[in-house]
Amino acid sequence: MNGLFITFEGPDGAGKSTQLKKLGEYIEELGLPFIKTREPGGTKIGDAIRSILLDPSNETLTEKTEVLLYAASRAQHVQEVILPALQAGKIVLCDRFVDASIAYQGYGLDLSLKAVKIINEFAIEGITPHRTYLIDLPPDQGRLRMVKRQRGDQVVYDLDRIEQKNLSYHQKVRAGFHQIYNESKERICLIDGTQSIEAVFQEIKQDFQTYYKTLI
Amino acid sequence: MNGLFITFEGPDGAGKSTQLKKLGEYIEELGLPFIKTREPGGTKIGDAIRSILLDPSNETLTEKTEVLLYAASRAQHVQEVILPALQAGKIVLCDRFVDASIAYQGYGLDLSLKAVKIINEFAIEGITPHRTYLIDLPPDQGRLRMVKRQRGDQVVYDLDRIEQKNLSYHQKVRAGFHQIYNESKERICLIDGTQSIEAVFQEIKQDFQTYYKTLI
Repeated sequence: MNGLFITFEGPDGAGKSTQLKKLGEYIEELGLPFIKTREPGGTKIGDAIRSILLDPSNETLTEKTEVLLYAASRAQHVQEVILPALQAGKIVLCDRFVDASIAYQGYGLDLSLKAVKIINEFAIEGITPHRTYLIDLPPDQGRLRMVKRQRGDQVVYDLDRIEQKNLSYHQKVRAGFHQIYNESKERICLIDGTQSIEAVFQEIKQDFQTYYKTLI
Repeated sequence: MNGLFITFEGPDGAGKSTQLKKLGEYIEELGLPFIKTREPGGTKIGDAIRSILLDPSNETLTEKTEVLLYAASRAQHVQEVILPALQAGKIVLCDRFVDASIAYQGYGLDLSLKAVKIINEFAIEGITPHRTYLIDLPPDQGRLRMVKRQRGDQVVYDLDRIEQKNLSYHQKVRAGFHQIYNESKERICLIDGTQSIEAVFQEIKQDFQTYYKTLI
């Protein structure tokens, strides 16, 4: 397997999708083979799971169901999309992966970190990211951006089921991401997401250039 | 919690649903409070998961995704249906539960029994059946009944995704159920499903009467 697996992590509104798109454009300019994908979803089955997870009318969805559905979507995504692309030597750019489950479900929901980790290890079969861009942003700023993105700058009720959770939850998620960073500094590149889109991208691009050079 | 949790297990075509219905009618005659439910499904979210699991067009569904989706459906079912009914002192009659995952996924698919057990323990939060009726049937007889049930007695292509698997898989599942029985004889009542519907029900009814008397 000669591919390169790169994930983007961080809170909603931090600009993960934008940065993933920009890195994709840069990699395209370099003429390297790559794919863009995202979690939850990324496959037909994953999209069906995603629609259950994000449907605001599913307000009875339990926390444990949430953990297991994310892991189910991930197992499908690894086997059907990520692994074949890596085996074909491609760069895989993925919006969220296991770190998101550990941060949102393990830390955010106060569930057993050990159980969340075992369930996800079962799902990914040893496929871990080579490099992760963690875009950090205080929760209040992330939520503000989400609202502005969705409805001018006034109402919040169009946020999805996860985004509707309260601020203390999102603070625990952020602390979780920091803890994950502290445990995996060799893999994770932490970036200040309060900067402009261009400034964030310059950091990612430089890191990618440096990291990629070590491989060739 | 004063309720009673009774599950029905065994291969497709063994008559679980019929026997569950008959025991429900008997319990109703006795004037005892009860509910009937089934896995996967039993809740709105569980039914959405069930439709992903049983859709024959989802032929790319991975084995690990299957394990995690069943467990997700189960976590929802326990919290939303089984636990509240037991807390209200009801008898819960449930078509399939954890034993089915161990047999079909652990034994049938040759996945790690340890992982399948840990994932299911996470899902059920200590809610285990008090009594289980395991209706045993050689796989060829079970499949024959499924076909006859669905299409007169000729074609098989209307079987769902699980039912379409080959005979050796169903033989491993049966051996798995026998192994589970050997490990939990105090909980499981093993019944020969080649008997008539009435003969099977007499065994279940007698066992239920005896078991129920020990509780009151």
